[in-house]
Parts: sequence; C-alpha cells; structure tokens
Amino acid sequence: MADPSKDVKKLSMILESEEWRVEKAIERGTIRRVRTSFPGFVYYRTVREFAGFERGTLIVPSHGLLLRGFPKIERALLLEPALRSRFGEVGKVIVEEKMNGHNVRVFELDGEVYAATRGGLICPYTTHKLRNMFEDELKQFFEDYPGTVVCGEFVGKENPYVSREYPEARDVGFFVFDVRDPSGRFWSYEEKLKVDEYGLERVRCFGEFEVSEVEEIHRIVRELDREGREGIVIKDPDRKLPPLKYTTHSAHVEEIEWAFRFAFDLGRDFVLTRTIREGFQSFEWCEKDRELKRRGAEIGRAIVEGLRRAVEQVVEEGEAYEEIPLTFESREWFERYEDFVKRVTGGTHSLKIIEEKEDGTVRAVLRKRYFGTGDKVSRILEEGVL
Amino acid sequence: MADPSKDVKKLSMILESEEWRVEKAIERGTIRRVRTSFPGFVYYRTVREFAGFERGTLIVPSHGLLLRGFPKIERALLLEPALRSRFGEVGKVIVEEKMNGHNVRVFELDGEVYAATRGGLICPYTTHKLRNMFEDELKQFFEDYPGTVVCGEFVGKENPYVSREYPEARDVGFFVFDVRDPSGRFWSYEEKLKVDEYGLERVRCFGEFEVSEVEEIHRIVRELDREGREGIVIKDPDRKLPPLKYTTHSAHVEEIEWAFRFAFDLGRDFVLTRTIREGFQSFEWCEKDRELKRRGAEIGRAIVEGLRRAVEQVVEEGEAYEEIPLTFESREWFERYEDFVKRVTGGTHSLKIIEEKEDGTVRAVLRKRYFGTGDKVSRILEEGVL
Repeated sequence: MADPSKDVKKLSMILESEEWRVEKAIERGTIRRVRTSFPGFVYYRTVREFAGFERGTLIVPSHGLLLRGFPKIERALLLEPALRSRFGEVGKVIVEEKMNGHNVRVFELDGEVYAATRGGLICPYTTHKLRNMFEDELKQFFEDYPGTVVCGEFVGKENPYVSREYPEARDVGFFVFDVRDPSGRFWSYEEKLKVDEYGLERVRCFGEFEVSEVEEIHRIVRELDREGREGIVIKDPDRKLPPLKYTTHSAHVEEIEWAFRFAFDLGRDFVLTRTIREGFQSFEWCEKDRELKRRGAEIGRAIVEGLRRAVEQVVEEGEAYEEIPLTFESREWFERYEDFVKRVTGGTHSLKIIEEKEDGTVRAVLRKRYFGTGDKVSRILEEGVL
Repeated sequence: MADPSKDVKKLSMILESEEWRVEKAIERGTIRRVRTSFPGFVYYRTVREFAGFERGTLIVPSHGLLLRGFPKIERALLLEPALRSRFGEVGKVIVEEKMNGHNVRVFELDGEVYAATRGGLICPYTTHKLRNMFEDELKQFFEDYPGTVVCGEFVGKENPYVSREYPEARDVGFFVFDVRDPSGRFWSYEEKLKVDEYGLERVRCFGEFEVSEVEEIHRIVRELDREGREGIVIKDPDRKLPPLKYTTHSAHVEEIEWAFRFAFDLGRDFVLTRTIREGFQSFEWCEKDRELKRRGAEIGRAIVEGLRRAVEQVVEEGEAYEEIPLTFESREWFERYEDFVKRVTGGTHSLKIIEEKEDGTVRAVLRKRYFGTGDKVSRILEEGVL
C-alpha cells in the first residue's frame, strides 16, 4: 500500500498547491482516494473544483499523471444572442453533433488505455469496451502524442450511464470530440482531424458557419430533432473560447419523460430546466398556435406517461428501476465492473448475469434502482398521502 | 413603546415556555415582533413551529391574546387509500369545497375585528374588506362566543394574495370553514352551522359521505373541475382527525401556467408537486389513451404558454410581474395597506392609485414583481445563456 503522506507530497506538486491545502481537501472529501482493480493502482479524484482544477480531475501520484476535469459546457437558451455574444469577435464557428451518452476522457498509463468518467472515476466497463473497439488505434495515437487526452462521447444502448440507441454505434460506440494537450490546451478543429488517420471515429461535424448564419444552425437542430437526436455543440474553430451546447425538442421531451418515471429522485431542478429550454426555443422560433400546441402536448404527454409508468412499475414490481443490457468479453471484466458498481453506488445498482457463452462472453443486465420514487410511490399507494 | 423584557415575560406565559427559550427564539427570528398601524399595537408572530405552536401563531402580549397558527392540511394524492387510512375508523366524512384564496383567521381585540394571514400577519387590506362585508355579523358572533377564532377563505379577483374570480364573491368574499375555541379545539360540523345564524357565509358543503363512497366524492371533484374550481377538503364530522385536501385538474393546470410565468421565482418544487398530483389522479381514475392525452396536452400547454408569456412580458415591459386591482373605502385604508406592503415585501410589490372618487373610494392596482424571472429572462434575451 502506498504511503499516504507521500501521496500528499506528490499531489501537492502535481496540483501546484500547498501540502496543507491538499490535506484539508482530502479531509473535506474534495479530493478522494480511489483504488482500481486492474491492476491495483491508487488514484485521486476531485469532486469539486480545487485550486483551479475542474471537478473530475484525476491524479495518479505514483505515475505523476494529471488528468484535468472536463470543463462544463454552457448551454445556449437562445441561439442568436448566444452566438453573437460568445463568438461575435471570432466571427466563425464549428458546429458539431452533441451525442447523448457520457463524457469520457481516454488516457494512457503504463502502456495501457483507460477511460475516466466526468466525475474522475476510471470506469472498468467503459475501459473494457474502449479497448475492445479501439485499443490499437488509441495506443498508436498515444505513442505519437504522449500525454494527450482523447475526449469523446461513449454512447449506445449498452451504455450503463445513458442508454440510447445510435444506428452508427451498434451496442456501444465512442466518438471523439476533443483532444487535449498535457498542458490542458484543447486542439483546434484542424488539429483534431488527425484522429481520423488513426482509425478513431469523430462526432459528426456539420461544418463551419458565420456567426450570423443562425437560421442555418437552427435548420440543423430541427433536422436532428426529427431524427430524435440530442443536439449540437458550437465551437470556436481554434477551440480557445469555451463552447456552447444547444439541444433539441425531442431530447427535452425524452428527458422529461425519464425524469418523471423517477420523479422523486430526479424531479425538481431537472424538470424545470428542461421545460425552460422548451419555452425559449419556442420563443426564438416564433412558434404560432399550432406549433405551440404540438410542443405543449408532447411535453405534457411525457410528464403524464412518465408518472403513469412510475406508478405502474411500483404497483407491479414493488420498486422503481431501469435496466440496461451489458455484454462483457470475459467473466473477469464482468467481475471488475460488478465490484466497481457495488463500491460506487453502494448497492442501489446491481448486476445480474443473463447468459455465459462458451467463448467466455458474459451477457448481463444492470438494474438501476430509484429508491426515492419506489418508497414514495409505495407510500402513496398505501396511504394516499405523501 | 412597550418594554421588550416585559413582552418576553408575557410571551413566555402565553406560550407556556421558559423565558430563555422565548428570548432565543426572538434572537433566531423564529418569533418576530411586528407593529401594526391601526391602532399602533405591537404583536409577535412565529415564522416556524415553536413550543408546539404552529407556524403563524400570533400573540398580542399587551392583551394576553393568543391566535394559534392554522395547521397545514395534508394533501391526498390518491383518494381511496387516503380516505380509508385517515377516516376508516370514523366511517363518515364531511366534504366541503376548498376555495382558492388565502386562509384568514378572524379575531377580536378591544372590540375591533382583525384578520390574520396564514403567516401570522395582521393584513390591513383583508381586515378592511372583512369589516366592510361582515363587521356587525362578526362582532355579534364574538360577543356570543368570546375568544373564538373564525377561520375562512378570503377570495375574489380583488384578493392581493390569490386573485381568482368567484361568481358568489363579487370583488372579494369571505367564506368560513372552521371555528376554533380559545383552547385550540375546532368546532364540529354541527356546531359550525351556528355561523349561518349570524349572517356569515360558509364554504359550500357537499354533504356527509361514507368512507367507502369514493366514487361519489370523485364525482364532486370532476364537477368542480369542469367549473374551474379548486377542490375539496375532507373532514371528520367531529373535526377531531386532521382533514385532507384534494384538488382538481383545472386547478393544477392553472397553477402550472402561473408557475411558469414566474418560473425562475417559483419553479422547482412548485412545478414538480403539481405535476405529480396529476399523475396520481390520472392513475386513480384509470385514464385511457384519450383522457391521458387530453390531460397531458393541457399540462403542456400551460407550461409552454406560461413560459411564452414570461418571455414576452420581459421583452415588452422589461420585468415580470402580475397586477391585481384593489379598492379601498378611504385614502386612510389605502395608506395603511401601502405601508404594510412596503414593510412586508421590501418594495418588490407596490401600489399605484388609479382613481380617487368623490366619496373617498380609492381604486388602486398592486404590482407584484418577480425579480428572479425578470432578471434571468433579460439576461437570456441579451446573452442567450443563463
């Protein structure tokens, strides 16, 4: 086992922060120690901003590795003023697709590829799947650009974080949207194209636009909406100004329904923010009666159906949950992930094996339970009051 | 001016609580000192539960008067289990209308009638209007039943708290729903009928029902819904068990639209709770596709229209607000209320005179501003992001 006081020294050097600050942050739980299971190395992650480093920063003291947290991307509620005020001076923007999965930072350590979640945890499932899909490609890339971080969206119906089907992704997929230098600098759009040469996939780019081409960009959003896709990210071509995201009606509706299925766990902020996005989109698109009515009807349907599904699930099964199918190449990877899920969720999520094939493949299902909703709906069903 | 240490002694006696506890509560702001303007007497109110007394308890130390806070009425989300678990042993319930106004407790002090809000403030407007409508009736009642408290709903389109038209109320109205003894005991339904003899009005009673007559009660709710009215309160005929309230779809929809007009001030909890009520009502009524769709469409329309109105108001007028017309019998009452509004809202609400008639009548308008919504919508309109 590593000597914790040694770790503090190293953390202090890596984060360029006094030792007592690091110690305090560990005490307060701002910096947390995590032990991986493959192989057993120790790392630290920040669960809040610390010393100028974003939440989700991951540090491996034994290797001097620093993986900066991925900055939160601000959301545009009205595209026209947002484009003007954010990118007015640059004049041009790159519009890329925002896919609906989870943000993953891929890095190399001791010649192996690892995937970190937004929160700074090394996820064995994501790592496993990434190695399956792109191990050689990533290793080659890191050989040529050591110390860089490949940032992308991990998507697909077998994504335990956000399960959504993508025709281009089969069960899971990984689409690069950024590369970051060891210094923390993001690569420009031009530089980023290099990942294509390594056989990695990139999120779709819809092209470069003038800041004034708002209508063009809205057209892309409407098209994505019709296809049931999430939205766009708008970037400075040089990737110097912070990007903006903007999402579709269908994404909002989908999230609202989901939020109401687990209303007592997610509710509040979640619901309000999604509906507010709808209001501003409707306003910017100058919607008249018919469109307003359609938009409203779809939001309302999502709310009522989400709630009905919640109640019916608790009536029929006694708890509120969702299930996501996962496939592992081997029993070993399954167990690593099972151990991870147990530690991270404290047992509210659990894995069950559905099938073990002869070639070692394990088909499993992850059950994510929402106890708040389960308990409260049960109580209401029994006593009629909350 | 009263001697504060004397007040503490008296408060301590009235609330049957040690002096140091009362002092602490005053320090912490749990018990607050208020000065009325008509005539200038001093009272205290509790803004949280204290020593077993409900929030909104009002004490006038100089007169030894104690006005208990009105207990929060629990909400039924599913009528059938709620009736069974709450009133199963009693077997019978009284169903009264729940009107949409503000809860007022009327009491007598030095031969004058005063009206207290839920929060324990003596509201000059409510007091003024009540005296206009029922001064003699109330005085007679208090003469016969000294120390009692007459609890009722103050409603109407000229209600500054909740402005809703009621055909039976003209501009404002007051409908008794409870009478409380000095001891805190609520009068039974039978006893309460006495207020009729004094010429006071009572909220509508739909009759006495068996706990098992759930379908009958639902029918009343549906009828109220069609009329755009708020809902019902279900009571133990002896008024010993705590009552339950249950509200209509149209009330939820109306509140949702209103909440979204001022989304950044009210939002969050407000929206979630209203929509959750809809989900359970729909479930209990076993709604099928067509009804579900209609319910959803109405909720969605309320959300989208509420938001649109918010944005449009800020675009056109630079702030988010609502206005309520108020009429005063004299300049004096207007000024008392204006002073009250200034003190209580710190200036976010303000009064403007529209007309002063020859007979002294003052027609005014109360503007209630929602700064959170005004500021945030303005920012989004300018910068596109929040």
